[in-house]
Amino acid sequence: MTVVATGTVHGVGLGPGAADLMSVRADRLVRGARHLAYFRKAGRTGRARRLVDGMLRPDVIEFAMDYPVTTEIAVDDPAYNERLSAFYADCTRHLAGLAGGGADVVVLCEGDPFFYGSFMHLHSRLAGRVPVVVVPGVTGMSGAWTATDRPITWGDDVLTIATATLPEAELARRIADTDALVVMKIGRHLPKLRRAVAASGRTQAAWLVEYAAMPEQRVTPLAEAADEAPYFSILLIHGQGRRP
Amino acid sequence: MTVVATGTVHGVGLGPGAADLMSVRADRLVRGARHLAYFRKAGRTGRARRLVDGMLRPDVIEFAMDYPVTTEIAVDDPAYNERLSAFYADCTRHLAGLAGGGADVVVLCEGDPFFYGSFMHLHSRLAGRVPVVVVPGVTGMSGAWTATDRPITWGDDVLTIATATLPEAELARRIADTDALVVMKIGRHLPKLRRAVAASGRTQAAWLVEYAAMPEQRVTPLAEAADEAPYFSILLIHGQGRRP
Ligand SMILES: C[S@@+](CC[C@H](N)C(=O)[O-])C[C@H]1O[C@@H](n2cnc3c(N)ncnc32)[C@H](O)[C@@H]1O
Ligand SMILES: C[S@@+](CC[C@H](N)C(=O)[O-])C[C@H]1O[C@@H](n2cnc3c(N)ncnc32)[C@H](O)[C@@H]1O
Repeated sequence: MTVVATGTVHGVGLGPGAADLMSVRADRLVRGARHLAYFRKAGRTGRARRLVDGMLRPDVIEFAMDYPVTTEIAVDDPAYNERLSAFYADCTRHLAGLAGGGADVVVLCEGDPFFYGSFMHLHSRLAGRVPVVVVPGVTGMSGAWTATDRPITWGDDVLTIATATLPEAELARRIADTDALVVMKIGRHLPKLRRAVAASGRTQAAWLVEYAAMPEQRVTPLAEAADEAPYFSILLIHGQGRRP
Repeated sequence: MTVVATGTVHGVGLGPGAADLMSVRADRLVRGARHLAYFRKAGRTGRARRLVDGMLRPDVIEFAMDYPVTTEIAVDDPAYNERLSAFYADCTRHLAGLAGGGADVVVLCEGDPFFYGSFMHLHSRLAGRVPVVVVPGVTGMSGAWTATDRPITWGDDVLTIATATLPEAELARRIADTDALVVMKIGRHLPKLRRAVAASGRTQAAWLVEYAAMPEQRVTPLAEAADEAPYFSILLIHGQGRRP
C-alpha cells in the first residue's frame, strides 16, 4: 500500500495584467505547475490563461472552469445563484480530487485573489478539505491608479471602494462622502455611475481606466468617456490630502 | 562634446515584506540598479533596504534618505511640515541630479508606491523635471488579509480604507457605515481606534495584523490585542457580501 501526501491548491494572484507584474512567487508557481486551473467565459481563452502563455511546462495539465452564466443580468434571480453554486461545487470536487490524489494545483487569479475574486468561492469550499494557500497579487486598482500617474491617497485621506452594481442613490451617497474613490465592476453600469458621480459634483475629478497594465490600457476623463465600459475598467477619484 | 541622455527615476513597489512578493519587474530593476535610494528612520537600516539585502549589484551606489522627523506627534505643527518639505526638496535635488547626469535610479517603496507612500512626495516634485516611472506593488493590506486567510470583499461589499490618525468620532462613523474595513497607520492610535470599533459594535469582527508577510507576522483578534501596535500593522474587518 502506498500512502500519498495530500497536495496543495494554490490560489495565485497574477496582478493587473502585465506578466512581469506578477510576483516572483507567483511566477515560480506558474512555471512549475503540473496542474493549472482557471476560470473563463465559455468559448473564450480567458485573460488569466492568456497572460501565462509561454510560461507553462510542456506537460502541464489544464483544467478550464467555464462559467455557466456570462452576464450579471440575473444576479438577484435564485436560479442564477443555484447554477453558480453548483458550478463552484463541481470545480471544488475536481480540485479536491486532484489534491487528494497528491497533486499540487495552481489556480490562476486576476489581481489579488481575496479582493472580489472568483477563487474565493472555491477557497471557502476547499477549506478544511485540502490545504489551500493564497499568494497575494497587485490589484487591478493599483494598476489603474499607476496608469493615471497620480497617487490615490495622501496623509489621512479616506478611500472608498465600491462596485458599480450598487443602487444609484447609494453610489451617490458614498461618492459624496469620501476623499478618494475606486469603483469596480462597471461595464453596463457606467451611465448609472456617471449620474451618481455628477450628483456629488465630482465629474471633473473622475477618471475611467480601462485595461490597466494591459496592452490596450486607456485612461479617459469621465466627462469624455463613452456610455459603456469593458469588464476590465475602474473609475477613480484621487485623494487630495495633506502633503508637506 | 558628449550629450548624455537623461536617466529615469523608478519608484519601485516592493510589496508587503517578503522578497518573493515583489513583482518580477521590481525584482529585475532592483537587481540591475546601479543607483539605489530609500527612506529610513535615521540610525536604522530600514525595512525596504533590508528586504533587498543580497539582491544588489556589488557596485551599487546607495542613497539613504534619513527622515528628519521620526514620530508623527507634531503633524499639525507648521514646523513639522517645513522640515519635511525641505527634506523632500533635498532628496529631489539629489535624485534629479543623478538622472540629469544620465543615471537611472531605483527608489525602494514599501507596498504600492501610490498608496499612502513616501515616494509620492518625491514623485510630485520630480514630475516634469526628469522621467519618473512607477512600478505598482502588492499593498500591505493585501498582505494583511491574506494573513487572515479570509477574503476581504465579496459581491457588492463596500470597502472603506482609513488611517487611525483620524479623529475618534470620524473613525467610528466610518466603521459603522461600511461592509469591509481596512485601517492603516495605527501605532499609538490603537486605543482610540479600539474605542471607535467598539462604538460601532464590531469589536468581535475586527482583526489586527502585524508585520504582514514578514517573518514576525501576527494575526490577533482585536479583543485580545495589546494597547500599542507597531508601525507595520493594519486593522481589518472582513466583508460578508453575496456569495453563491
Ligand atoms: C471580479 S473583480 C476581480 C478583482 C481582482 N481580484 C483584483 O484584485 O483587481 C473584476 C473587476 O476588477 C477590475 N479590474 C481588475 N483588473 C483590472 C485591470 N487590469 N484594469 C481595469 N480593471 C480591472 C474591474 O473593475 C473588474 O470588473
Ligand atoms: C506610509 S503607509 C505605506 C503603505 C504602503 N505604500 C502600502 O502599499 O501598503 C504605512 C502603513 O502601511 C501599513 N503597512 C504596510 N505594509 C504593511 C505590512 N506588511 N504589515 C502591516 N502593515 C503594513 C501600516 O499600516 C503602515 O502604518
